[in-house]
Amino acid sequence: MSETQNEAPAQVVIVGGGVIGLATAWRTLGRGLTVTVIDPFPAGAGAQARADAGAAASAEVGAGQASRVAAGMLPAGNEMMYDNSDLMNLCLASRAFYPSFTAELEADAGLPAGYRRDGLLEIAYGDVDVAVLNRILNFVEPLGVKVEQLTASQCLELEPELAPEVQAGLYAPEDGSVDPRQLTAALVAGIERLGGTVLRASATEVLIDGDRATGVRLADGRVVSGEQIVLAAGCWTNQLKGIPAGVVPEVRPVKGEVLRLRSERPFLRRTIRGLVDGSSVYLVPRADGELVIGATYLDRGYDTTVTAGGLAQLLRRASTLLPGIGDLEFAEFSAGLRPTTVDELPVLGATRVPGLLLATGHSRIGIQLAPISGDIMAQILATGEAPELAASFSPLRFS
Amino acid sequence: MSETQNEAPAQVVIVGGGVIGLATAWRTLGRGLTVTVIDPFPAGAGAQARADAGAAASAEVGAGQASRVAAGMLPAGNEMMYDNSDLMNLCLASRAFYPSFTAELEADAGLPAGYRRDGLLEIAYGDVDVAVLNRILNFVEPLGVKVEQLTASQCLELEPELAPEVQAGLYAPEDGSVDPRQLTAALVAGIERLGGTVLRASATEVLIDGDRATGVRLADGRVVSGEQIVLAAGCWTNQLKGIPAGVVPEVRPVKGEVLRLRSERPFLRRTIRGLVDGSSVYLVPRADGELVIGATYLDRGYDTTVTAGGLAQLLRRASTLLPGIGDLEFAEFSAGLRPTTVDELPVLGATRVPGLLLATGHSRIGIQLAPISGDIMAQILATGEAPELAASFSPLRFS
Repeated sequence: MSETQNEAPAQVVIVGGGVIGLATAWRTLGRGLTVTVIDPFPAGAGAQARADAGAAASAEVGAGQASRVAAGMLPAGNEMMYDNSDLMNLCLASRAFYPSFTAELEADAGLPAGYRRDGLLEIAYGDVDVAVLNRILNFVEPLGVKVEQLTASQCLELEPELAPEVQAGLYAPEDGSVDPRQLTAALVAGIERLGGTVLRASATEVLIDGDRATGVRLADGRVVSGEQIVLAAGCWTNQLKGIPAGVVPEVRPVKGEVLRLRSERPFLRRTIRGLVDGSSVYLVPRADGELVIGATYLDRGYDTTVTAGGLAQLLRRASTLLPGIGDLEFAEFSAGLRPTTVDELPVLGATRVPGLLLATGHSRIGIQLAPISGDIMAQILATGEAPELAASFSPLRFS
Repeated sequence: MSETQNEAPAQVVIVGGGVIGLATAWRTLGRGLTVTVIDPFPAGAGAQARADAGAAASAEVGAGQASRVAAGMLPAGNEMMYDNSDLMNLCLASRAFYPSFTAELEADAGLPAGYRRDGLLEIAYGDVDVAVLNRILNFVEPLGVKVEQLTASQCLELEPELAPEVQAGLYAPEDGSVDPRQLTAALVAGIERLGGTVLRASATEVLIDGDRATGVRLADGRVVSGEQIVLAAGCWTNQLKGIPAGVVPEVRPVKGEVLRLRSERPFLRRTIRGLVDGSSVYLVPRADGELVIGATYLDRGYDTTVTAGGLAQLLRRASTLLPGIGDLEFAEFSAGLRPTTVDELPVLGATRVPGLLLATGHSRIGIQLAPISGDIMAQILATGEAPELAASFSPLRFS
């Protein structure tokens, strides 16, 4: 190994090119540190390869990457927040940060970040679903989130494709969505414009010298040295060799299947989250006519196959809410592996190994939390101090 | 154009590398004539390219090719036969020919032809469907087709994955299926082994000298001369330039969407055709674990997009009959364009232009009719005489 040519060292080396690793890299470069991101298939670069080669490249982007598959819905409220005010504050901070984060990113990257703040409509289809809407309303209104109660006919006015049977709605005009494929592509471009490196390579081992993390070994034997090493490899974070026992908590994969349909003109005007007799489905439109429908939630380990049952479930729920989707073109059905910790909360910050940090465990809300997570990590990397907002999410909570 | 290098002439030039063109070519070579098949994406070669390159090549095989998409169910009876005894006789002749046709092909090609004569199970799910089963029984039994009536529990014994609600079944132990991708790959190999040429090129024009067809012009200007020209280009047959008006009947595309699922071990033991409250669905298993589910039937011109509605329909019908398919992996959803004439019957034989023949219009039963169609065309090409069996299918019936 000693004869292998090594990569240039960086102050910060980040393992993982999903939205969390890339957001961390871009914010850290903004604070003047040198950064290298390591990923065999960085999420944004994968999107670019796909765009270049059509369907051809789809088998070659990283299977199971949560950032590549995510729909990118950005609701203010979320059932994950209800029981945890620290997570709620983190989500609200990320929500407040999204507009300036993406505007600044677009200026850096020269690419669209795919952010849309054009309204999010929550729909209750059945009687039982109306109660859930009321729970959401009662939760988010006191937080200062702008939200209006809608009658069925007001819902149909906003989105004429809705089934006439819908019962009621909630409209959040200041929420919306982001296209994770555009966002990650913009992050890769922003990183490279600021002088950072996105290395298309597989990291296999964290190098520890004495008790300090000093770099990362790649699959081909090369070494990337760094003063601080951030593991942001989602559910693959624990698979790196060289990490002392107990330093990285369990981050298990939770599979989510997502369906992509397509029409010439957008089928929906804005993002819809629907409750259909107690089951949830969300539909995120893109300006180019893509309609992203999510998502299943399955504990199946690292299996990334997509199933007939998941497909049938999404189609059934979506077409109950929006009967007209039957005419849309089928475009893609794929699965992402959401990195999920035992307490289902993110892991952000320093471990007990000096120089080794974590940024993962965002489960279903990694896209929502990307701006604030990147910013928190950048602050920790640049100053050594975690902001108050991040206190509950320290990796040390598991030891 | 005159400076362009031309292809070697052949006695028979066939435009179209679907199952009908390829079967015609292989049988004609067997009669000692020289043959060139022209197709930008010959069906079997497409399958090979896909196998070589994984999903990558799927966008590059001919979009809409009926032979590439077809499931390959080979039932003895078919609603298309009921009103037409000539079509019925053609179907029965092809059915009788399948075993020796595929055995001989495998010997020539050195590749499996994918033929399975391991039983076909017709299932009635609802009360109304039992009447249809009886109609099938009353139709095929007098023709000498071996068929047994089954109770619901006998059906479940044969195929344990069937829903317990099924009402009754018909079992045809001497019927089965063929894998059209294997069959066409074997035909391409068989043609090349017998000295035929499969030219990966687009034919654009039929060349007429005086009143006689003399060859075909390719998109790049090259010419392939032949003594007899067979148009077997499915629903693209009328799109060739140079054909005098009224010689080629209308052959319109009828879109069929087909779903492919996958499991490690075959989910079904044999082909099932199910009637679900008046709607039909069929499921054809392959030895490698693929399960092919067909098919929608849509008059949408040359549009080859696949729709959410078609997908939902096939999934709904199939999972009503076989609830366990939800666990199977989603593999492919694609559409073929079935070449369909005004009277919905095949067109086989000589036109009124000397040297110009047709072999197309097989609509939904091209895979079933491929052996007999290839054989009929070979006889006509070699002897100038059409067998009695083909009399009703002459292109001259339209003029």
